[in-house]
Amino acid sequence: MRNIDVCPTPELLHLYNLQNTVVVVVDILRATSCITVALAHGVARLIPVATLEECRKLQEAGYLAAAERDAKKAEGFDLDNSPFSYMDPGLEGKTIAITTTNGTLAITQSREAVKVIIGSFLNLSAVTNHLLEQSYDVLVVCAGWKGKVNLEDTLFAGAVVEALQHDFSINQDTALIAKILYQVGKKDLVAFLATSSHVGRLHRMGIHQDVNFCLQKDKFDVIPVLRGHALVKL
Amino acid sequence: MRNIDVCPTPELLHLYNLQNTVVVVVDILRATSCITVALAHGVARLIPVATLEECRKLQEAGYLAAAERDAKKAEGFDLDNSPFSYMDPGLEGKTIAITTTNGTLAITQSREAVKVIIGSFLNLSAVTNHLLEQSYDVLVVCAGWKGKVNLEDTLFAGAVVEALQHDFSINQDTALIAKILYQVGKKDLVAFLATSSHVGRLHRMGIHQDVNFCLQKDKFDVIPVLRGHALVKL
Repeated sequence: MRNIDVCPTPELLHLYNLQNTVVVVVDILRATSCITVALAHGVARLIPVATLEECRKLQEAGYLAAAERDAKKAEGFDLDNSPFSYMDPGLEGKTIAITTTNGTLAITQSREAVKVIIGSFLNLSAVTNHLLEQSYDVLVVCAGWKGKVNLEDTLFAGAVVEALQHDFSINQDTALIAKILYQVGKKDLVAFLATSSHVGRLHRMGIHQDVNFCLQKDKFDVIPVLRGHALVKL
Repeated sequence: MRNIDVCPTPELLHLYNLQNTVVVVVDILRATSCITVALAHGVARLIPVATLEECRKLQEAGYLAAAERDAKKAEGFDLDNSPFSYMDPGLEGKTIAITTTNGTLAITQSREAVKVIIGSFLNLSAVTNHLLEQSYDVLVVCAGWKGKVNLEDTLFAGAVVEALQHDFSINQDTALIAKILYQVGKKDLVAFLATSSHVGRLHRMGIHQDVNFCLQKDKFDVIPVLRGHALVKL
């Protein structure tokens, strides 16, 4: 039987075996939600990079560039990390270089896997249906917050574990913990997440809309997948 | 207000600030349960060491030596990692060197804290009452399993967070996750933990008794504390 496991933060990724594994990277607030929105709205490709320097070089080479640090847009870049910024029809067909505090690092660190796809509540069923149809083990890699575990990414991991639990084995407690949390919180994700640290951080910055948007399930049927250095539609 | 936080595995300890902090190390199955039992039954001191080599040197120097790796007693040592082994009246007044797969490493890595105490369900109220009476921040350090997060240590952390939540601030999601899990599981810890990976591992080895014993609350009123290199009664 295939295995489903959860890595709760990229800091622990070295403990997991990526061979024969499809990785789902999740950074609900807000990188992987933005990437899902962008590809659903006609952006051609996103190039995730770990550092501001790499992102600036790609900007200088002519790409649009999105950069977030500490939940704010980094100075001198074109786009921030709000899902609403990626709905602009002017972005259709464009390539966007993107770097965020946690999410893009999780993507670049997962490259060794058989395949890296991008998950968010916005494309949850598209992702889980795809995982059920393929033959590899699955590892959900949570972006977390600066190395630490966060609630919203763990919850998404739990949603994936719940959807896959009858077809995959759960051998590790992190997957079990994620599933239990999701079963407690799934009826009202907004209320359940109201006390989490990053939701608090975003609320203090006045970004309620972003949080509520990113917690909606199955708004889009797209699956972003890493091909070479770029995220494109599967 | 003082803070209560939870480090879910020693692999993430470098992300936490131990200044002005009392650390509670927990390895429910079974190191910190054994240490609690030992001091409650008259053992004078336990010296936690990270490696089998250090433990063997202390054995050669005349101490009793307890060593566990992969849930089994390591060859050539005096004691294993079952709480029942530490109830022997012959151990009264003795010093025991101890090394385990996860627990003793968590203790030795926490030395920088203001104080390091040892928690288990067996001395839960003794520990939380002590934490309420002192003025420092609190960090529960879960031993986990070979760097990964486990359910039983996270549950204990949640029990501590629940007991302290009205007198301490919860600023990080790991503490919130632990508290939610404990609130789901606390009515019947044995049933809740039945599906966890390490309980499965111990059951396969026929150690049901140890699991059931270690999940009992408040059997002992002792608090093991690290003084220099040894754990003694507070």
